[in-house]
Amino acid sequence: MKSMQRKKGAMVDKPVSKILSEIAKHLNGKVLGDGNITIAGVSGLREARDGDLSFLANSRYSGLLCDTKASAVIISEESVDAVRDKISAIIVKNPDLAFAKVVELFTPSSIKPHKGVHPTAVVGNGVKIGKDISIGAYSVIEDCVVIDDGSVIYPNVYIGFSARIGSDCLIYPRVVVRERVEIGNRVIIHSGSVIGSDGFGYALLNGIHHKIPQIGSVLIEDDVEIGANVTIDRARFDRTVIRKGTKIDNLVQIAHNVVIGENSVIAAQCGIAGSTRIGKNAKLGGQVGIVGHINIGDNVTIAAQAGVSKDVQSNSVISGAPAKPHKQQLREWASLKKLPELINDMKALKEQIEALKSSIDEITKPSKHSVF
Amino acid sequence: MKSMQRKKGAMVDKPVSKILSEIAKHLNGKVLGDGNITIAGVSGLREARDGDLSFLANSRYSGLLCDTKASAVIISEESVDAVRDKISAIIVKNPDLAFAKVVELFTPSSIKPHKGVHPTAVVGNGVKIGKDISIGAYSVIEDCVVIDDGSVIYPNVYIGFSARIGSDCLIYPRVVVRERVEIGNRVIIHSGSVIGSDGFGYALLNGIHHKIPQIGSVLIEDDVEIGANVTIDRARFDRTVIRKGTKIDNLVQIAHNVVIGENSVIAAQCGIAGSTRIGKNAKLGGQVGIVGHINIGDNVTIAAQAGVSKDVQSNSVISGAPAKPHKQQLREWASLKKLPELINDMKALKEQIEALKSSIDEITKPSKHSVF
Amino acid sequence: MKSMQRKKGAMVDKPVSKILSEIAKHLNGKVLGDGNITIAGVSGLREARDGDLSFLANSRYSGLLCDTKASAVIISEESVDAVRDKISAIIVKNPDLAFAKVVELFTPSSIKPHKGVHPTAVVGNGVKIGKDISIGAYSVIEDCVVIDDGSVIYPNVYIGFSARIGSDCLIYPRVVVRERVEIGNRVIIHSGSVIGSDGFGYALLNGIHHKIPQIGSVLIEDDVEIGANVTIDRARFDRTVIRKGTKIDNLVQIAHNVVIGENSVIAAQCGIAGSTRIGKNAKLGGQVGIVGHINIGDNVTIAAQAGVSKDVQSNSVISGAPAKPHKQQLREWASLKKLPELINDMKALKEQIEALKSSIDEITKPSKHSVF
Repeated sequence: MKSMQRKKGAMVDKPVSKILSEIAKHLNGKVLGDGNITIAGVSGLREARDGDLSFLANSRYSGLLCDTKASAVIISEESVDAVRDKISAIIVKNPDLAFAKVVELFTPSSIKPHKGVHPTAVVGNGVKIGKDISIGAYSVIEDCVVIDDGSVIYPNVYIGFSARIGSDCLIYPRVVVRERVEIGNRVIIHSGSVIGSDGFGYALLNGIHHKIPQIGSVLIEDDVEIGANVTIDRARFDRTVIRKGTKIDNLVQIAHNVVIGENSVIAAQCGIAGSTRIGKNAKLGGQVGIVGHINIGDNVTIAAQAGVSKDVQSNSVISGAPAKPHKQQLREWASLKKLPELINDMKALKEQIEALKSSIDEITKPSKHSVF
Repeated sequence: MKSMQRKKGAMVDKPVSKILSEIAKHLNGKVLGDGNITIAGVSGLREARDGDLSFLANSRYSGLLCDTKASAVIISEESVDAVRDKISAIIVKNPDLAFAKVVELFTPSSIKPHKGVHPTAVVGNGVKIGKDISIGAYSVIEDCVVIDDGSVIYPNVYIGFSARIGSDCLIYPRVVVRERVEIGNRVIIHSGSVIGSDGFGYALLNGIHHKIPQIGSVLIEDDVEIGANVTIDRARFDRTVIRKGTKIDNLVQIAHNVVIGENSVIAAQCGIAGSTRIGKNAKLGGQVGIVGHINIGDNVTIAAQAGVSKDVQSNSVISGAPAKPHKQQLREWASLKKLPELINDMKALKEQIEALKSSIDEITKPSKHSVF
Repeated sequence: MKSMQRKKGAMVDKPVSKILSEIAKHLNGKVLGDGNITIAGVSGLREARDGDLSFLANSRYSGLLCDTKASAVIISEESVDAVRDKISAIIVKNPDLAFAKVVELFTPSSIKPHKGVHPTAVVGNGVKIGKDISIGAYSVIEDCVVIDDGSVIYPNVYIGFSARIGSDCLIYPRVVVRERVEIGNRVIIHSGSVIGSDGFGYALLNGIHHKIPQIGSVLIEDDVEIGANVTIDRARFDRTVIRKGTKIDNLVQIAHNVVIGENSVIAAQCGIAGSTRIGKNAKLGGQVGIVGHINIGDNVTIAAQAGVSKDVQSNSVISGAPAKPHKQQLREWASLKKLPELINDMKALKEQIEALKSSIDEITKPSKHSVF
């Protein structure tokens, strides 16, 4: 067999092309420049080729416009000046969202898994399966599981005793959903994630760690998306909860009894320790660590790699380890840069003060003599 | 199919109820308050409902007693004053351990996997299987594997050539145990963990990284528990070793040739680089990173997110990155908060010293004139 | 069944022995000391037993020579003085690489997977399979996949629609390769890794996160090795790219649209956010975090746990969080140790200055009086 031929880009499967003004109409957007050009594909500004439609999420990146090979770009009102006379554009309210819609126009027809239960899937007793579902090869569905209408269970998935999967879910290959876990509707779980593993709880007695049974469960509400190789532990009793609309990136650890509020976003490799509660609309950067048993309010932003060890009030922006208000953190980081210089200054000052002391001694000694 | 009905809590499967004084007897504990109340379930203080028995691990959390709906609480002697006249209690030596026993009383009958080898499991030549074992659907057991009495291999597990699993182990779905790995008795390995992947070792020659064969193995001793999606690499030669009774949380990375002593506790997302040795009774907080080729003594506590780059003496408590003695670290963190102010102070002092110099010049100039 | 008998070490399967001078010849090395001794195995200096050949990668570790039980050691020219008259040695240019060759001499015959397609593997329509391949039990190969000559797909692997695997690859148990991912030749992917999961991209509209389709792919070039439980997301469109010869350790996260240059080394638990580009020959220590949308030049070294938030020039060495030039970082860390003392010094200086002011006031008051 010859060495693999690589196709350039991913768009080649579905050669379509559209006129820019048509796309603008589809997006409820306004054309700036030439609306008659032909768009053959979509791409990022850097990767774009002639004929591509790209987008500018943020005027901060408008420098990319100089080098791009894209034929047109989706922008918001604020970037109009940066774009004018350089490149054709579609002006919309939310370029990100508009671009998502355009991407769909050019998306290769998606790979629909076969409907029904693959003959090799092992399905236990008392399993209830809805309409229009797909259960892939070598998946194991234990007794008393419920899988609702329209959900897709890819191959090699394990779903434990009495777990419940809502409607229109996508459970990717090699996910593990342990016993009694409850998953809402339209939930997406990527490959390798483990939902409902035992919480990490031991009682120390005479130097030996005795396992505390973890007999609770996990509740994943509607419209949650969970990345690849994530771990979400079951509660000691009660439930670990991910509220609706929250999005979790790859390799995140969520410990037992954690509750995460609605519409939060948790970037990759964050770790949240046991029983901590996070409010709604949280934004956690990558690799954030949060200790157990604390409360984090609503609308909190936590910068990447922060280490959070205390309660956080709603609407806070925090960073650093140990985490503190971001403005304070920036001030400390800035002052840290001056510290080596400060230490030198201190040495100099000490010498100057010694010199001053000597001068004063000089003055006072003869002066005293002269007085007496 | 209707939208899923969610049961509240996890206890509903086994409605039991017991009298508080009976539970106290079972725990060798002493009742404080009314021993005749009926306990219908167990729960954390926050999540408790009327009729629940909860527990207070630490008097530090006694504030939770004000709001709890629990009917009684398990406490230690030190919390008696915090509880008296507020809520019925059982006084024990170790509330954590006592609570674990109570949880068992109320635990839904656990899901016992079927005994025997599932017909779809692929079992190689020369495999030795003990009594009372379970091997789940679609598990693959390669040639010459040994699985001892009472162990449970859940579905979709892979066990490589000549690996050995002790007695009474629980190997959860989708674990990979690579060739020649040795696992002791009563070991629990949660889903997605990989034991015995190749160590990360290359020899750099003319800019190319050449793979160094990793032909050693991994030894997991008795009573170890390993969380979900953990990775433990095989040694270059010899063995990576996890000593007995050590507990490892989710998403931990243990590199080749590492040795971790007995009864240690490693929280989630820690990473321990190659050939490092950790003594017994270590406690690592979440997201700790430890460089390779160092020695960490016995009874060492390492705070979450610490970065350890040097040997650590026994009985140390360290924190921060780079890690240092925790007390020193606290002092530095506290002083860091004062640094922006210190920089302002320094500016002010410089001005004051300049002013003093001028004053002295003022004094000495005329004085000198007057001398001559 | 009796409790497991544990064999000591991993070498017992293949008892071979060789004369030191023969091994030296095989390595193009020079014998120092007695070339006639018999070598029965290979081992690290610490773990070595009588008869073992070990190696000293770096003269920095020459202290280990005092305690080792090894019978001989492979060294480079720079360690000759440290070794002479203590232990027999083979002098080579690159002890690491030479040791790798010796390890092969003593390696237990590797476990060759059976050639061909296991009868339980599910192979879709239009799949093209090369010569001398192996596809293990319960692997699922979707439609239109290409697998080139000599590649080994271990059991329980999932390969998605239209993915391409080059020649002589090793895809370990429970890897997931999602649809349309392209993998080059001689690529090794360890268990549990997920290649081609969706990038983490949403457009926020009225507080709801709308998924942006991730329709790009991933390209893994020749000679890349990927550790266990790694996640590499597919691009939003276009491709996430790992260039040839790059080595990635366990539990690393690589987000959508990232490009990593040739021959780079990424240690465990690093996270690289979306669209960041890293040049060739990069060296990332463990747990490094890199924000999205930045450029990192060639030959950059980033110390463990660094947090990188800005572009990095070629040939830089950076560390800390936020990351800065390593020398500057070391200076700041050193000065931080002095900060508590500095704060005390500042207090003392303020007092001294106040005292000086008083002295001067003392001097000037009468002096002024005397003038007038």
